[in-house]
Amino acid sequence: MPRLKLELAYTGAEFHGWQIQPMQRTVQGVLEEALQRICNTRIRVHGAGRTDAGAHALGQVVHVDLPGNKTHVPWQKALNALLPGDVAVTRVNWCAQDFHARFKARAKEYTYTIWTEKDYLLPQRRPFVWKVGEVDLESMQNASGILLGRHDFQAVQNVGTKVQSTVREIKRIDFSPGFYSQETVIHFVADGFLKQMARNLVSCLVAVGQGRMDARILQNILDSRQREQAPATAPARGLCLQKVWY
Amino acid sequence: MPRLKLELAYTGAEFHGWQIQPMQRTVQGVLEEALQRICNTRIRVHGAGRTDAGAHALGQVVHVDLPGNKTHVPWQKALNALLPGDVAVTRVNWCAQDFHARFKARAKEYTYTIWTEKDYLLPQRRPFVWKVGEVDLESMQNASGILLGRHDFQAVQNVGTKVQSTVREIKRIDFSPGFYSQETVIHFVADGFLKQMARNLVSCLVAVGQGRMDARILQNILDSRQREQAPATAPARGLCLQKVWY
Repeated sequence: MPRLKLELAYTGAEFHGWQIQPMQRTVQGVLEEALQRICNTRIRVHGAGRTDAGAHALGQVVHVDLPGNKTHVPWQKALNALLPGDVAVTRVNWCAQDFHARFKARAKEYTYTIWTEKDYLLPQRRPFVWKVGEVDLESMQNASGILLGRHDFQAVQNVGTKVQSTVREIKRIDFSPGFYSQETVIHFVADGFLKQMARNLVSCLVAVGQGRMDARILQNILDSRQREQAPATAPARGLCLQKVWY
Repeated sequence: MPRLKLELAYTGAEFHGWQIQPMQRTVQGVLEEALQRICNTRIRVHGAGRTDAGAHALGQVVHVDLPGNKTHVPWQKALNALLPGDVAVTRVNWCAQDFHARFKARAKEYTYTIWTEKDYLLPQRRPFVWKVGEVDLESMQNASGILLGRHDFQAVQNVGTKVQSTVREIKRIDFSPGFYSQETVIHFVADGFLKQMARNLVSCLVAVGQGRMDARILQNILDSRQREQAPATAPARGLCLQKVWY
């Protein structure tokens, strides 16, 4: 069966996350439903990252095996015509049989956007940011250096699917301006992310930026390997799966 | 009574526009409701521009006369605590008794954002753009020159409140990149705007950009002073009241 690679963008507010679940509206669910309508048969898709309920994507990658008689379907157009407004296929191409959206991913980038003005939050940005008020970005950037490289990130993993190893390598953490001057985007590039790892790292960095946590404590939290040491998980709405590298 | 000047941002999707109307959720309505809760009396506000249902604002300006015993209320904080998430007070200051949000406005800027990629629309931008597909921006910019200056804009006014004159002066029309590379923002600065004038000008310019209308026809439409000559009004969701000058 020919294998198609899809790139997806979606907004997370109305989804119970990526992964298909009975009785819940999920991105995987609506995508498989659209494929089933076109192919008249149950189709399973495989996504690069299982984004959380409420989290967004600009560059989710998916692969799917399609019936041999469906190679002439204009897939991007056909799917975008059927998908609801909060998911869009931004690119499609046929790929090798051994391509796998999840297992062949070399690195992923998640972004997390914080809103740093304390007196208001632009309604235009409410679904996409976490309002944290004034923070010291320089101390956050300095603290982020502690996270770079290969570490056991068990202390910032939330309970979920069992994983063989909680060691991951963070290749880059960058800070950039957002769409509005009150926003800062934190970019995390890693070879993989544990469940809610990016959101827990953000809550640690914000605690540092608000002066509630010393950067050395961040090191202790990592070393402790205990989830209870880290602050509460940052809200999903600030998070976006930006890019997957193969 | 002391007069307060407020600046507001809002998203238009869930509002029946700015102006208060019985049985409809409007921005003026929710703002007056919040003021009434704080002041325990009916309070009337005056906005600079009566934005359409579905249109947004980043810089709506409002004035309101408040009871003399309410000058120590921290107004921005108090209102933002009561207002729903789709309206925010971005600035407040006490102003002169003769300040009037509408009558003292010297100029207003409306922006209109078009999405120029034909194959998809990012869900993140769906509420804020009009997807027009590929357009020739240069021909749109050239055509916009016809609109500059003082003209009778009756042909691009939709039916609504009677106005004394349909002559307005467009001071500037600029094109700028939007948040994503697939977006272009058209900025209109004028001494005033007729009902749905900006949206009708956009639909004319887009018709030019799509090669469906010659720029000279745009001149004829203006000259005709007849609404039927202009293409259908562009959707409200691309429109935003950006700034008001006094």
